Parts: sequence; structure tokens; C-alpha cells
Amino acid sequence: MVPRYARPAMSAIWEPEARFRIWFEIEAHATEKLGELGVVPKSAAKALWDWWATEPEIDVPAIDAIEAVTKHDVIAFLTWVAEQVGDEARFMHQGMTSSDVLDTTLAVQLARSADILLEDLDLLLAAIKRRAEEHKYTPTIGRSHGIHAEPVTFGLKLAQAYAEFDRCKTRLIAARKEIATCAISGAVGTFANIDPSVEAHVADKLGLEIEPISTQVIPRDRHAMFFSVLAVIAGSIERVAVEVRHLQRTEVLEAEEYFSPGQKGSSAMPHKRNPILTENLTGQARMIRGYAMPALENVALWHERDISHSSVERFIGPDATITLDFALGRLTGVIDKLLIYPERMQRNMDRMGGLIHSQRVLLALTQAGVSREDAYRLVQRNAMKVWESDGAMSLLDLLKADSEVTAALSDAEIEAKFDLDYHYKQVDHIFDRVFG
Amino acid sequence: MVPRYARPAMSAIWEPEARFRIWFEIEAHATEKLGELGVVPKSAAKALWDWWATEPEIDVPAIDAIEAVTKHDVIAFLTWVAEQVGDEARFMHQGMTSSDVLDTTLAVQLARSADILLEDLDLLLAAIKRRAEEHKYTPTIGRSHGIHAEPVTFGLKLAQAYAEFDRCKTRLIAARKEIATCAISGAVGTFANIDPSVEAHVADKLGLEIEPISTQVIPRDRHAMFFSVLAVIAGSIERVAVEVRHLQRTEVLEAEEYFSPGQKGSSAMPHKRNPILTENLTGQARMIRGYAMPALENVALWHERDISHSSVERFIGPDATITLDFALGRLTGVIDKLLIYPERMQRNMDRMGGLIHSQRVLLALTQAGVSREDAYRLVQRNAMKVWESDGAMSLLDLLKADSEVTAALSDAEIEAKFDLDYHYKQVDHIFDRVFG
Amino acid sequence: MVPRYARPAMSAIWEPEARFRIWFEIEAHATEKLGELGVVPKSAAKALWDWWATEPEIDVPAIDAIEAVTKHDVIAFLTWVAEQVGDEARFMHQGMTSSDVLDTTLAVQLARSADILLEDLDLLLAAIKRRAEEHKYTPTIGRSHGIHAEPVTFGLKLAQAYAEFDRCKTRLIAARKEIATCAISGAVGTFANIDPSVEAHVADKLGLEIEPISTQVIPRDRHAMFFSVLAVIAGSIERVAVEVRHLQRTEVLEAEEYFSPGQKGSSAMPHKRNPILTENLTGQARMIRGYAMPALENVALWHERDISHSSVERFIGPDATITLDFALGRLTGVIDKLLIYPERMQRNMDRMGGLIHSQRVLLALTQAGVSREDAYRLVQRNAMKVWESDGAMSLLDLLKADSEVTAALSDAEIEAKFDLDYHYKQVDHIFDRVFG
Amino acid sequence: MVPRYARPAMSAIWEPEARFRIWFEIEAHATEKLGELGVVPKSAAKALWDWWATEPEIDVPAIDAIEAVTKHDVIAFLTWVAEQVGDEARFMHQGMTSSDVLDTTLAVQLARSADILLEDLDLLLAAIKRRAEEHKYTPTIGRSHGIHAEPVTFGLKLAQAYAEFDRCKTRLIAARKEIATCAISGAVGTFANIDPSVEAHVADKLGLEIEPISTQVIPRDRHAMFFSVLAVIAGSIERVAVEVRHLQRTEVLEAEEYFSPGQKGSSAMPHKRNPILTENLTGQARMIRGYAMPALENVALWHERDISHSSVERFIGPDATITLDFALGRLTGVIDKLLIYPERMQRNMDRMGGLIHSQRVLLALTQAGVSREDAYRLVQRNAMKVWESDGAMSLLDLLKADSEVTAALSDAEIEAKFDLDYHYKQVDHIFDRVFG
Repeated sequence: MVPRYARPAMSAIWEPEARFRIWFEIEAHATEKLGELGVVPKSAAKALWDWWATEPEIDVPAIDAIEAVTKHDVIAFLTWVAEQVGDEARFMHQGMTSSDVLDTTLAVQLARSADILLEDLDLLLAAIKRRAEEHKYTPTIGRSHGIHAEPVTFGLKLAQAYAEFDRCKTRLIAARKEIATCAISGAVGTFANIDPSVEAHVADKLGLEIEPISTQVIPRDRHAMFFSVLAVIAGSIERVAVEVRHLQRTEVLEAEEYFSPGQKGSSAMPHKRNPILTENLTGQARMIRGYAMPALENVALWHERDISHSSVERFIGPDATITLDFALGRLTGVIDKLLIYPERMQRNMDRMGGLIHSQRVLLALTQAGVSREDAYRLVQRNAMKVWESDGAMSLLDLLKADSEVTAALSDAEIEAKFDLDYHYKQVDHIFDRVFG
Repeated sequence: MVPRYARPAMSAIWEPEARFRIWFEIEAHATEKLGELGVVPKSAAKALWDWWATEPEIDVPAIDAIEAVTKHDVIAFLTWVAEQVGDEARFMHQGMTSSDVLDTTLAVQLARSADILLEDLDLLLAAIKRRAEEHKYTPTIGRSHGIHAEPVTFGLKLAQAYAEFDRCKTRLIAARKEIATCAISGAVGTFANIDPSVEAHVADKLGLEIEPISTQVIPRDRHAMFFSVLAVIAGSIERVAVEVRHLQRTEVLEAEEYFSPGQKGSSAMPHKRNPILTENLTGQARMIRGYAMPALENVALWHERDISHSSVERFIGPDATITLDFALGRLTGVIDKLLIYPERMQRNMDRMGGLIHSQRVLLALTQAGVSREDAYRLVQRNAMKVWESDGAMSLLDLLKADSEVTAALSDAEIEAKFDLDYHYKQVDHIFDRVFG
Repeated sequence: MVPRYARPAMSAIWEPEARFRIWFEIEAHATEKLGELGVVPKSAAKALWDWWATEPEIDVPAIDAIEAVTKHDVIAFLTWVAEQVGDEARFMHQGMTSSDVLDTTLAVQLARSADILLEDLDLLLAAIKRRAEEHKYTPTIGRSHGIHAEPVTFGLKLAQAYAEFDRCKTRLIAARKEIATCAISGAVGTFANIDPSVEAHVADKLGLEIEPISTQVIPRDRHAMFFSVLAVIAGSIERVAVEVRHLQRTEVLEAEEYFSPGQKGSSAMPHKRNPILTENLTGQARMIRGYAMPALENVALWHERDISHSSVERFIGPDATITLDFALGRLTGVIDKLLIYPERMQRNMDRMGGLIHSQRVLLALTQAGVSREDAYRLVQRNAMKVWESDGAMSLLDLLKADSEVTAALSDAEIEAKFDLDYHYKQVDHIFDRVFG
Repeated sequence: MVPRYARPAMSAIWEPEARFRIWFEIEAHATEKLGELGVVPKSAAKALWDWWATEPEIDVPAIDAIEAVTKHDVIAFLTWVAEQVGDEARFMHQGMTSSDVLDTTLAVQLARSADILLEDLDLLLAAIKRRAEEHKYTPTIGRSHGIHAEPVTFGLKLAQAYAEFDRCKTRLIAARKEIATCAISGAVGTFANIDPSVEAHVADKLGLEIEPISTQVIPRDRHAMFFSVLAVIAGSIERVAVEVRHLQRTEVLEAEEYFSPGQKGSSAMPHKRNPILTENLTGQARMIRGYAMPALENVALWHERDISHSSVERFIGPDATITLDFALGRLTGVIDKLLIYPERMQRNMDRMGGLIHSQRVLLALTQAGVSREDAYRLVQRNAMKVWESDGAMSLLDLLKADSEVTAALSDAEIEAKFDLDYHYKQVDHIFDRVFG
């Protein structure tokens, strides 16, 4: 976790204290149910909750100090709680194993993280939608391979991003559902020393589903899926980030990250205004993507579990969620305040001497009876002249001067193919598809 | 693709001829609809389908030869078809762009691949279920950290695998749904030169959904998700593979891959019977996992598309699906024919001098009023003696000779804690959860 | 391996027949030495070499058929050779284990691959150097963040690539050295049944070093390093590919991939000339990078070896080397034939109204006694006006009209800072550093 | 970075204050040289060093506050220093660009990290060597595929690890050399506003080499190589970690991590002693391996640089080096205190009924004139009986009762093949190769 790429709400989920609070709640809820079942005295849970009601501080250093001896974090925590609560605390954790606590806690943390990320996505989607509607009919050139292709609108670009993040939201909802399970099944998942109703009780209290079958741990394919979905979302962030970076290039400059008063683009060159936020997002996407690999390697634990996943999750649990939360927030800000330059878009579109209309002429020629191959050849030979003139020549003029072309199409027919509005007749239909 | 890790049905999807057949169908269906719309003569589609009805061979080398000149695969194909069909063929591809064909084809290929993989999963699930029921109550030791923990049954191990692959199936169904979209939206996705109804028509004929908004291409977050799901499935394969490899270790030998007559385990050592199938699967899992990374990097294409994704997909499209198909088939065979040795399982379980019952004594002591910390200390000090004797000593005997223990528990109470059946009372409940 | 991304010389290394030929040579050389040592009759090696001298064809399907029964590739091969050579063949492989043959063969294949890749790098370096010298003083704008920064030359861009690939060459030489070891140490690396002098003999004959200590296999950290180096080289290819893609963008168009007669850029848009070769290289770089991950996972084999690395290497051995060979060749072609447009470079550089000289004015102001912060503010406020005018305004004019600036610098002093040649005084020095 | 996996010396390198200290030194050394060149007053450097001699505290929050406005870290730092030093400070950074400072600083940090890692490797190598010599002739079984193969010694296992980490050291030395370069070449690497001698001066003072050609930044192939080497080292750590985990398995228990007084292996099962340190290392290896991917993606920066690498390096700079330092230290501790059980090794080796001698009988039969195929069949059919008896039968007895075997070999000849010492005659030779 890099502090400058962290926001408080998400970071709080991963603080030691937050983790210990969830541990306590799991233990107390379980003890409660064990009391109902008559396995432990009912007074045990009461003692725990009574102490909890005093809103005690969690003394993290004290717990750490115990762990330094026991080399076991859950035992250290139980020992510390017992010191606070007294004798009744010995009934805690009856029939449970550490992983019951640890894995269920991780489920809570990841589910809460997912909730924040889902809110982030909603804010991002709202920002994209607002700007998409604003620029629904702002003409801009569509580019394939970085080369001018045919006209689109800036709203369409944003609608594409909207549809993509909407899919990401669906994926994250599914991934959240997968990860939000509770396992209280004992040392090897047999419920030998703990009744399944305890698991059901704790799951219910924490808003989780029960894990149908656990070993000692919740199976790590769930986590692999979760972090893979974060990686996919990161890929979508990168896509928009790269788009903005392209649009802000000096020669393009169709859009620009907001540049605040007092901001300096370069220590050496006072003229610089760089797309640093989206470059930064590109790098963060690389990291979040990278975190999926160890999550995938974590699946194949040995037998009923080994603990190799744990160190991985101490990194990627916070790092992937905190960084993605930050990145989504940053991207939302970028979209929200993006400086958009329609005039420059128009000027760029105009600079190719009408090449962007080549397909329509091609189609018109084939419609007029020219073979596809000949039509292609005719348009291409004129287009290449314009290309090599860097837009100084006009495709329209050249076509009208090409006797093979004019043998098939009249001047008026050719001219009619150089109409921008023609390209926008389905924009409304596409917006309906995307925004419903 | 490595031929020895390929099966015919899946490989066939990725043959050049299969690809060209899908290309043709897309073009012909589109031409059909264009005919209905009056954009091209109705005779055009008829000419195409009439030729198709002759069941023509696809002359792959001829198409390749054209591509060598045009450096464009779709144009090469269209040119070749035009040579076969004649003049009417010039109406093909009207208003479409290559990616309309290529991306929709990839969608068909990936959807068909997913269908095979789903069948593979069904066969695997059936094999696992059969063996799970067979060994529902076969006692075996549960291990955490590779160390004996507490008893489970071999059926539970398999039930865990069943639940995991069942989740994988759910994920793959979702991923298939995501990937199965059709885009016929023209050069930059605006439908400028092609009516959206063509897309709807082709989608319907090919069993796909329409892509709500495409640029020039179907957005690659869909593919990133698809290949990530394959990577997760590979992780689950690896988990079972690693389990079998452990079980076949000389010192464990609780299960073994089928060893066929005539098979040789080693060129040098005639005594060897090695878990080579599951080791092989472990390596294949690494490959399939690795293929997710370039798929994730493919998301951030430039503007309305660049073609960097294409070379990646020429590798991972076939390699990931063919290898996963093979791996699922191989794993099914391993499970199906797995040699399972219950006596050895029992013998291994017995070798630790009763240590595997330590928790129950711990719990009994706390129930009897000993503090958790003291109870732990009492059991641990006796357990460590057994551990260090490598199972030569008996935990039961030592406990009965420990006056601090006997102060809290009678001999009969201690003995009652060394009961294997106690651990299996919830097996039926867990099977109900998993197999419904 | 994708056939269209494969060249014959590299592919040949990975053909089954080539592999079997190396197997034979290892066995025959070893048998020869064993004969000298008196372990087997000297006639055994003679029989093998005599047969070999007949230039026999390797009957791959026959060997495969034997493997189908034995499920062991080396045994299948030995059996087939024995069928050809007769009785004397039984002395082959004495005291050796399959991995002695397999791993040493892989070493030969990777070393030969590296040799081809080193030749590829030499050709690439030569092409880069030629173009670098050609454009040593061709002015072009240097860009950071995609934004015009300060002038460089096109030769400098290429010199940077030269230095980078030269480092790649050094790395590959080191990686080749690491990978080129021979192990003939028997079943678990103890030389129990084979004298170390056999290993030394075979190593010498094959141009390899001896592996100082093997288990059953050559340790896989060597291979992990090798494939990591290929991944780094792929990254450097990607860097140049991305550069070309940027330079060919419509709005930039300072350089362009060669576009051959008859080539078609798009099936729909006849005007298109796309940087498809470098986009293609970008995708290939993703693959080669991806192959490093399973190679790294291969290191931690179990005990004296497990065979999980083998399936991985059946993929990445050929796939990574063949693809990298192709990519290096393709990049060399791109560089060699790259269309370079100096006029356009100059025009682009001129379009920012002189902003690219902002630093020199900043420095002059501080030299003239203005504080760094004030100087920055003065230049930035004028630069921002030019920026917002999209280069229509002139930085020089604005500065000369800014009384705070002119209080520190005379018009002549300001004008002197707008000199292009000033930036090129160290070009020769840098070329000396790079090209020596 | 996870605090529990961090050691102070390595962490200190990555503290903000440490970074600022290097920044200052670079700026001050550069100013000094600029003074010598007459570009700035000599008094400027003096003022800087005089202030530095007062051992000022670096006020990190103050610098952060300035950055919050400027959104530029180096400018913020320069501003803060100027506030401390006064007017003379305006000559700092003359002709330099931020990356000159940032990249050279990263080079210093990575070089220092490498120095610590090299010390770590030396300590690890020393520990391995000590234990290797201690157990040079401790018999233990060699295993391939997890199955008993033939005898090795425990010292040989360790010697293998020694050779592997020795290679890792060589790689790290090369990677350190690659990464330790200094670039002070100005905004786009042309030295337009700064003489190359400044770079040479700073490089000399900081113990770096000059970067022969930089753009705005030091090229990232260097960093990709560096982090790839860390990934390879992590793979080697994982290999030893997995070995220890296997050896500690209940059924094997030939070695064990040190288990300290007061340690608890499980909250539920007091009998547990788990290989948690090496499992933990396995997870850490996954992370360090994962960090290589974003480093490789960082190579292809746009044009003369974009800043996407920066966020990646803020993560992996500290995370990869700190975690690897911790992991090497932990592994050294594991090796140092590893509990090694020779009796158990012997007992395990004896449990297979002599199967581990099967190869020697095979060889003896072929030497005695039996064909390789027949010899294999004879030994295998007896070996399989022993295998299926789980070592209850004796291979020696069975062979002596097999008339086809005894037709070729006398009882004494067979018995002679079951000699353990035979396997160790080259141990000394191998140790010589490894330890020299």
C-alpha cells in the first residue's frame, strides 16, 4: 500500500484494529450460539458482549507482544481478550479453529471493500454518463490503429466506457457474492466439535452466506476469482486512461486533464501540462493486474490447507482494494473535470482532406455496379495522394477528376458522400442501448 | 498449442477452415438481411447460399496466397469467395468492417469452446461425485500444513473438489454469456453504413447476443474476463493435481494414479510408479494461468481499436482452450481410475500415537473448568512427547498418567475423546450441502 | 507457436526430429566414453555411430507408437534405436536417467535458439545504427507525457534503442552461458552408476559446460533466468514498436511503416495505412512476457525433481524463442524500411508557438537574478497563453511584451534563447558514448 | 510493504527522509560542478553544503504541503530547500530536470538495496554451507516425482541449494551493476542546458556509472532486468521452502523448522508443529515473482518518457526489495536452526523393501548379457510386488527367487547391488565442484 494512493474509508477496513473488531464479533456471536446450544454457559457470551458494550479500545501493541511469544496471532488475540474479560472468556473459540476466524474476517473485509468499490463504480458511471450526454453529438474522429478512420461523437466514446464499467459492476457484484461466505467448521471442516448451526448464526449476523464445504479454510478459488475481477476492472481503467493520454498529446489536444492554479507541469519546462493523472492510473492498473497472479497461485493449497496464501493476502488484500478504490476515485475526478475541446476535434477531423469519407465512396461505387476490387482500387489510388500530401489535397476534388470514378458516379453523388451527419443517425439508438 | 495436449473436437474449432466457415456464414447472413433491407439485391445472398449448398472445400492455401499480397486476411478471403461465387459476391461485406467478421467469429469460437469446456466440467463433476459417494465414509487423516490434523473422510476431500468445480462451472457459464456477442456495427461502431438490424439478424442466426456498443471491435474486457475464468479453473485443476501428487508420495501412498500394463515409470529405475499425469496437469495449469496476463493487457486498446490484441489471441484463443480441454479430460481420467487405498489411509492415521485427538481433550479440559491456557499447556506438553517419539508413545497413556489432567478428567472421560466416529456425524449434512 | 509468427531456422530446432537427433548424439557420445572406461564394450559406440553414418531417417511416428505403450518418451526412443541398431544398442544409456538426455537436449536447443537470437540482435542493431547515423542530426521534438518538451534528433531516438538492444545482447549472452550446461549424473545426480568423466566428455562434444551439481535435473533457476531475459528483450521490442505507432498517428505522422504496393489497410476504408507490424509486435511482446511467469513457477520442483516443468517447457521452449526470433526479424524489417518524414517533424516542432524554448528563458531569468519561483511564474504565465491558443500565439512575442521579463532580459537576450542548434551540441558526444 | 515482513535496514532506504537526502546530495553535487564550470556562482554549492553541515532535519510534512499545491514533488522539495538555504538556492537544479534527480535517486536506492541483498545472500550461503558440510554424508533418499528414487545425502541437497544461490548472487551482482547508473542529461537527454561533466561528477560522488544515453529518464529495461532477477531469487527461495515443507510432513518428518518454547502450532490442536516459516516464504515468493510483471510492462514508456512507471515503482521499489530481504533473512534462520533427523531419514529409506536398488540390478543384468528390455521386465515384475506390499516384501528376496534373474546373476552378485555406500563415492567430487 502506498499512502499517497490510499483513501481513508478503504484503508480503515484493513487497519489492525478493524480486523480485531471483526475477530471479536465472530467469536462473540459464535459463543452466543454455543450458549444457546448448551455447549458453553450462556453467561460466556453475555460477559463478552458486556465488555464490548464498554467500547473498549483494542490494544494492538499488547496483542502483538503476546504474538511474539506464541507465534500465533489468533491465540494472542484470545489471550488478550481473556485478560480483559476474565474467566468467562475461556469458553470462546470452543471447537473452532483459527481459520474459522481469519477466513470469515477476510470475507467481511473483502465484502466491505467490494461495497466501497461498487459505490466508486456508481460514482464513476454517473460522471461518465453526465459527460456522455453533454457530448452526445460532439463530432470527433474515430481512430483505428491511431489513424483517422471515420467520424464518431465524443459521447459515443464515453458511452463505450459506460457500458464497460457497467459490465465491471456486474462482475464485481458476482465476485462479492462469491467471496462473502462464512466458515465455522472446525479444524478440518468436519464440524466435529462445533455444530453447523453456529456457522449459520454467525453468517446471518455478519451478512454472509455459509460456506457449503470448507477444509480448514474457505477455498481460495473464490479469492482468485475476486482478485481477477479487480484486475479486469483495472484493465478498463487503463483503457480510459490511455484514451485521455492520447487525446491530450500535443498534436491531438482534443481533451485535457484539469490543470489547477498553482500546478506545475515540469521543474524545467514551464510550458508543460501533462496528463499525469491518467499516466499514474496506467501504472496503478499494472499493479492491480499483477496482484491477480499470486491470487491465482494461492488456489492450490496442500491438502486441507497450508498457510502460504496468508502472506500473499496480507499484501494483496489491502493493496489491491485500496489502490483500486483510489484509482476509481481518481478516474472519476478526471472524467468529471476533463477539459474537452470540440473545436480542436473538428479541426483534427478536417485535416485529412476528406479521407474519412473514403468508405462511403467505395460503397457507392459498388452500388453503382463497379466490382468491389475495382472500387477499392479507384478510391485507394486517390486516397493515397491525399495521404501523401498530408491532407493538403482534397479527396473530393481528386475523385471528381478521376474519369473512372465519374464514369460510375456523378459529381453530386460523390459530394453527397462527404456528409458528416450521415454518421450520426444511430447515435440515439446506441445511447438507448447503453443507457436504457 | 502442443499437439500432445490437444483433443480433436476442441482443436477443430481453431482450424483455419473452421474459421473461414464462420466468416462465410456471417457474411452470408448479413448479405441476406441487407437484401431484405433493399441495400443489396436479394440475389446476392441467394448466390452465396447456393454456392455454400454445394459444400465447397475451403482452399486455405489459396486464401493465404492472396493475403500474402493484400496483407489483410479478410480482404483475401472475400476475394477468394468472389472468385468462387462470381459477380454477385461484390455485395458481400457492404458497410461492414473486417472486425465485424473477426470479432464475431472469435465470439463464436470462444462460445463453442466454452460449450466443450462445460461438457468437460460435467464429466469431471460426475466422476468426482461417483468417487465421493464411493468413499463417503472412508476414514483418512485431514492435514493442515502437511501435518496430521484431525480425521476427515476421503469422500469429503472429493466433495470439496466437487463444490469447487461446480463454482467453476457457474463462472464459465457467466463468462460464456459475456463473450457470446455479435458486433456488425461498421468501421467505428456507428452503424453509419449498416443498419443495426443486420447485427440483430446475424446475432440471432449464430446464437449470440448483440454487442450493445462496439467501437470497431468488441471490447476486450469481455475476453480478459473469459481468459481469467479459464485461469481460475486451471487453479482448481492444479489443486486436485497437487493433492493426488501428495497422496501418491512414497511415505503416504494413500492413492495412486492408474498404472497401466506395459507402462514404465523410469528409464533407469524399474521400481518407479510416478504421478506423472497430475504433475503434467500442474504444468499445464501454469500455462493457462499465464495466458490470463496478456488477455488482461489487451483491454487497453488505443482509441476505437488497435490490432495488438490480435496476435495475442492467435496464441491464447487456441492454446488456453485446447489445453484446458485436455487438462479437464486428463483430470477426469485420473479421478475415474484413481487407485484408492483405505487400509493405508487408516495406517497413516494411526501412526501418530493418537495426537489427532488432542483438540477434543483440550475442549474437555476447558469444559471441566480448566482455563484455556492451562488446558493447552497440559495437552501440548504430553503431545510433544508423542511427537518426538514419532508416534511410538501414546497420547492417551500419557494423559492418563498426567496428574494435572486426571485432576480434571477421569480415565473414561479421556478415553471417550479418542473416538473416530465422533468426527463423522456431519458428513451426511455436508454431502447434502454439496450434492443437494 | 503460431505458424504465421515462425521462421524456419528457429522452428527447425524444435521439430521432433531435431530433438531425437540430439538425443542420439548424447547417447552415442556417452556410450563412447563408457566404452573407453571399460563399462561397456567399445563396439557399442561403434555400432551406434556406424548406423548414424548411414544418415538414417528418424521415424517419428514409430517412436510415438512405442511411447503410446510405455508412456515414457526416452524409453520409446531407445527401444526404436535398438530395433535399428541391433544387439549392441543395449549398452546405450548405461547408468543414465532420462533427464540426463532430456535436460541436456533442452540445453542444446536453448543454446542454439540463443545463437539465432543473438544473430537477430546483431541484424537489428546494424539496422538501427544505419538509420541512426542517417538521421543523426534530423531535428524532431522530444516528448514527455506525450507533450512537446524540447528538441532532440531522430538519430538520438534510434541511438537510445541501440543502447537498449545492446544491453539486451549482453543479457542474452549471459543467459545463454547460464543455460548451456550438460548433466549426465544419473537418477538422482550422484553419479552412482556413471562416472563424471562421461558428463565431461558429452559436454565437450556438444559445446556445453558441465552442470556442477544436478539433482535428477538441471536446476530450473537457469531456465527461469533465460526466459526472463527473453521477456526483457520483448519489453524493449515493445518500446520501439510503441514509438513507431505513435509516430505514425494521423496527427503526428513523422514516420511510417513501409506500405507495399497492393497492400490494403482496411477492408472498409481504402484510405488507411496502419502501423500493423508494430501493433502486432506489441501483442507478441505481451506473449513473450507472459511466458516468463510459468518459467519462474517452474523453479520450485519437488525434491530431486518432479515433472511439472516439462509440459510448461513443451510450450514455452518453442513458443518464446520462435516468437521472439520472429519479432526481432519483423522489427529489423520495420526499422530498415521505416519511412521517415523530416519535414513533418519540423512542422510539428514549430506548431507550439515556441513553447519548447521555455526552459531556456527560465534559466536566463534566474541567471539574470530573478528567483527561481518568480522566473517560473513569469514564463509559465506567458506559456499558458500560447498553450491555450494552440500555438497561434508566439511565446517570443509575449515575453518581449511582458515588462517583468524585459526588466531582466533584453529582446536580443530573449531571442537568443529560441535557437534550435543550441540543443544539438552534445549529439556527437552521445553518439560516441553509444556507438563507441 | 507489510510491516511484519520488513527489516529496519532495508526499510530505511525507502523512507521519505532517506529519499530527500539523496535528492539533496545530487542537487548539491551538481551545483558544485556547475560552480566549477562557471555556470552558477561557486557560492551556491557552498551555501548548500554549509546548510547540510548543520545536519538539518528534513521536514517531510512541510514538503508534502508544498506538493499539495504544486502537484510536483521535486519542485516542492526545491522550494522547501530554498526556504531553508536562502537566495543562493536559486542556482540549484540549473539545466536539470526532475527525472535527473528521481531516476538517479532510484538508482542509489536500488544499488543500496542490492548491497543489502548481497549481504543477505552471503549469510544464507554461509548457513547452507555449514549445514551441508555437517551432513555431507548423512544418507537420505532422493525422490523424483515424490517417489523414492535412489540414495543421496542430505549434504548434497544443501549443496544444490548452495550452487543455486551462488548463481543468484552472480545474477544480482550483474543486475546491481546494470541499475547503478546516473543520468543528469536534462529535459530530453540532450545535455542542452547542462554539461555532461556534471553527470560524470555526480556519478563519481555517488558511486554510479554514467548512463550512456538517457531520454528524460533512465531506460526501464534496466529496472525490468533488476526486478526479474529478484523474481528468480524468489523462485530459488521457494524451492528450498517447498523442500523443507515436504521434509516436515508427518509421514516424512526428516527435518523440521525450529519450534521455540512457548510457540503454539494451532489454536485448536495442541499437538501441531507446522512448517509455517517456509509456507510463509512460499507466499512471499509469489509476491516477489508477481512484481516482475509490472516492471516488465514499464519498459515501453511513450517517446522520451511518460510517468506511468512511477506509481509502479513506488510499490515495487520498496515492496520487492524489503520482502526479499526479509525472506532471505527468514530462510537463513530456517536453515541455521533446521532440526535434522538422520535416523528418520534412514528409516524412511529402508521402508521400500530395497526398491531403491532396482537400477543397479537392471544394469547388472544388461552387463550380464540380458537385453535392456528383458532386464527391465524382470526387475519391474519383482519390484511391483514389493511396491504393492508397501515394502513388506523384499526385492532382494524376490530377485533371488526369480529363476530368470538367477540365470544371469548369482545370489552374491545380486546382493552386492544392495550396497548404500556405492552411491556416495562421488560426493566428495561434487562438493569440490560446488564449494571449490
